[in-house]
Amino acid sequence: MLKLNPYLNQIEISIIRKFSEEAKKIVGTVDKPIINLAVGEPDLPQPKIIIDETVKYMQSSPLTYPQLGGVLELRKEIAKYHSEKYSVSVTPEEILVTVGSTEALSTTLNAIIQKGDEVLCGVPIYSGYEPVIKLRGGTLIKIDTEKTGYQLTVELLEENLTDKTRAIVLNYPCNPSGVVLSKKNRDEILEFAKKNNLFLISDEVYSEIVFEKSFNSFLSDEYRENVIVVNSFSKSHSLTGWRIGYLITSKKIRNELLKIHQYTVTSPPIISQYGAIIALKKCQDISENLKIYSERSKVVYDELKKIGLNPIKPEGGIYIFLPLKELGFKDSYDFCLKFLEEEKVVLIPGIAFSMEGFVRISLIQEKTILLEAINRLRRFFKK
Amino acid sequence: MLKLNPYLNQIEISIIRKFSEEAKKIVGTVDKPIINLAVGEPDLPQPKIIIDETVKYMQSSPLTYPQLGGVLELRKEIAKYHSEKYSVSVTPEEILVTVGSTEALSTTLNAIIQKGDEVLCGVPIYSGYEPVIKLRGGTLIKIDTEKTGYQLTVELLEENLTDKTRAIVLNYPCNPSGVVLSKKNRDEILEFAKKNNLFLISDEVYSEIVFEKSFNSFLSDEYRENVIVVNSFSKSHSLTGWRIGYLITSKKIRNELLKIHQYTVTSPPIISQYGAIIALKKCQDISENLKIYSERSKVVYDELKKIGLNPIKPEGGIYIFLPLKELGFKDSYDFCLKFLEEEKVVLIPGIAFSMEGFVRISLIQEKTILLEAINRLRRFFKK
Repeated sequence: MLKLNPYLNQIEISIIRKFSEEAKKIVGTVDKPIINLAVGEPDLPQPKIIIDETVKYMQSSPLTYPQLGGVLELRKEIAKYHSEKYSVSVTPEEILVTVGSTEALSTTLNAIIQKGDEVLCGVPIYSGYEPVIKLRGGTLIKIDTEKTGYQLTVELLEENLTDKTRAIVLNYPCNPSGVVLSKKNRDEILEFAKKNNLFLISDEVYSEIVFEKSFNSFLSDEYRENVIVVNSFSKSHSLTGWRIGYLITSKKIRNELLKIHQYTVTSPPIISQYGAIIALKKCQDISENLKIYSERSKVVYDELKKIGLNPIKPEGGIYIFLPLKELGFKDSYDFCLKFLEEEKVVLIPGIAFSMEGFVRISLIQEKTILLEAINRLRRFFKK
Repeated sequence: MLKLNPYLNQIEISIIRKFSEEAKKIVGTVDKPIINLAVGEPDLPQPKIIIDETVKYMQSSPLTYPQLGGVLELRKEIAKYHSEKYSVSVTPEEILVTVGSTEALSTTLNAIIQKGDEVLCGVPIYSGYEPVIKLRGGTLIKIDTEKTGYQLTVELLEENLTDKTRAIVLNYPCNPSGVVLSKKNRDEILEFAKKNNLFLISDEVYSEIVFEKSFNSFLSDEYRENVIVVNSFSKSHSLTGWRIGYLITSKKIRNELLKIHQYTVTSPPIISQYGAIIALKKCQDISENLKIYSERSKVVYDELKKIGLNPIKPEGGIYIFLPLKELGFKDSYDFCLKFLEEEKVVLIPGIAFSMEGFVRISLIQEKTILLEAINRLRRFFKK
C-alpha cells in the first residue's frame, strides 16, 4: 500500500464500535437473550411530529443545496433557543450547522491544531477527540480527575499547561461519568482559557439531559472569542441517524470554520436541517424523556449500590460509569469480553474512555431490562 | 482572535459561492428578470420514486446510526453497478459511503497529504480540491492543458513530477470544460501513477452525463491500490440537497480512510443512504435527463459558434466553458460582474477554475432561457 498520513497508524476505529462488532460475533452463539448496553444511542423514539413534518417538506420542496453554513431559519431557532436558555445574546451569524457534533468537533480541531500542539482534557473522556488531534500531529494531554470528583479544575489545568497548549476540550455532562461541571469550575476554567489564550471546546451534546443540578453551559457573551460550544440533536431528540448538529462561537471564528466546513462536507443535508427546525419549533419540551433517563439512572445507581458496587453518581447523560478495580478487574476490555460471553450483556470497557478499571453501562433499555443486566452482573461477580 | 491554522488565511469560501452571493445583492435592483447560470446544481427534478420510497422508509423504520462506512445494502448496489458498468470486480468492502463527493475528497486528501506534498492536476479545474490540500500544508500544482485539448497527459505530468509529488487529482468529464479524457490518456496516466507510486484521485461525479464518446473511468482491477474513485448522486440523480456520495478503492486503503471518515462525520444520514439505494435499484436509467443535457449542450455550443464565439466543445457534464481572451476580456471576475449588471445573467468567472480569461455557463435552465442568455451575451459583446 502507498504511504498514507503517518498518524493514521496511531489511531483505530473507536473501541466502542470495535467492541460492538466483537459482541455481534459472540452473540452468534447465544443461549440467553443478549442485553445490549453498548453504544450511546437513545432508545426513546424520535418525535413523530419531526418525521411527519419533514416528510411533508420533502414532498413539497425541492431538496437542493442548502444555504452555506446552515439554513437561516434553523440558525435563527438555535440562536433564539440558546439566548433564552442561557440568558446570552447569540446571533445566527455565530452558528454553523454541521453533520452531527462529530463534524463540528473535527472542523473545529482542524482549524485549531497544528503539529506539536497540545490539548488538555480530563479523563474519563469520550473517545472521539483524540484521533482528530492525533491526525493533525497534535497530542491530547489526559488529566486524571478521579481526585476532584471527575471535575476538571483550573489547578489540574495549571499543572499541565505548557507553551504548546492550544486548547481545552470538555464534555459535561460527561460521557461516560455523568458528572456535571460545577459553576465555580466552569467560571474559573473560562477565565483560565482567556488568560492563557486558549481555545475552549465544550461538547455539550448531553446538555438537555441533566437531572437535578442545573447545567452550566460554557456559552457566554464575555468569553465568546475563546469558546466553541458544540451540540447536536442526537441525544436530546434521539435524531442519531439524521446526523445533525451545530457549533456556536464568535462570528469571526465561525467564518473561518465555515471555510473548513465547506470543503469538508459542503453542508449537512437539507432534510436533516429541516428536521432540526421542527425539533426546536415544536419539540422543545423533552421533559418526558428526561424523566425516563433520570429514573433509569437512579434505579441502576441504587441497585448497583445495593449489590455492593460503587458507581459514579450520574448528574446527567445516559450512562453509568462503574469502577471494577476494587473487584480485582484491571483489564476492562477483558472483563467486558468475559461478562459478554458468560452473561450475554454488552458493556463498554473503560479503556475506551482512557480510564482503565472501569466499565460503562448505557441506559438505553427499559428499566426491567436494566435490572436484569444488574442481576447478571451480581451473578457474575459472585462466581 | 486567537491564532488559527495559518493555512486558513490562504483559502477562501469558493469563488462560485462568493460570486453567487454578490449576484444576489445586484439582483436586488433588477429591471429585466435575472437568468442564473451560476452554481452546478441540476434543475431537472429528483426522481419522485426516490422521495416516495424514502418517505415510506422514514415512516416505518427507526432512523438510527447507520452501519459504519455505509449501509451494506447500498454498498452492495454500488459494487454491483460499477462491476457491471466497467467490467471490473468491486466488492462492498472496497466502498466507503460519504457526505457527498466533497467528504469523499476531503477524507481522501486528509489521508494522503502531508506538509510539503505536491498534487498534480490539469487546469481548468474544479475549485474544491485546492483548499483541502492547502489546509494540510500541501500544494496543488496546476498544469495548463490548453495545448492538449484540455486533456491531462503523461508528458505534462512527467514535466511537473518532483520528489514531492504524492498524488494526481482528475475530474473528467471536466467541470468546467466538459472534456472527457481519452482512453489512451487514461491508460497512460494509470501506468504513470503506478510507476511513480502516486495516488490517483479521480472525481467522476459527471460520469453518468456523457454525450457521444464513452466515459473512461479510472476504476480498474489492476490499479486498485493506486486509485481512489469518487462519485455521488448529486449530478446523476439531482440529489444535491441529500449530500450523498461514495469512494471506491482497495479494501486496505478504504479501511484507513474509514478511520478519518468516522472521526469527521460518523456517517452520512441513514435517510440519504436509503435514497441512494432507491436511486440505484429503481432509477438507474437516467437517459431522459442525459438527452436533455446533451441537447442543451449542443444548442448552446452551436449558438455561441454562430455569434462568432469559440467555446470548448463539451463531451459531457452540465457546463460550457467559453474563452473571452480573444474578445479582450482578461479579468473574468470583472467581466462577470459587468455582464450581470448590464444583462442580468449570472455566469461564473474562469478564475474560479484557476483559468483566467474564460467564463463558465451552467446548463441548468430550459433551452429557451439558455437561448435568451446567449442573446444577451451577443448584445453585450456588440456594445
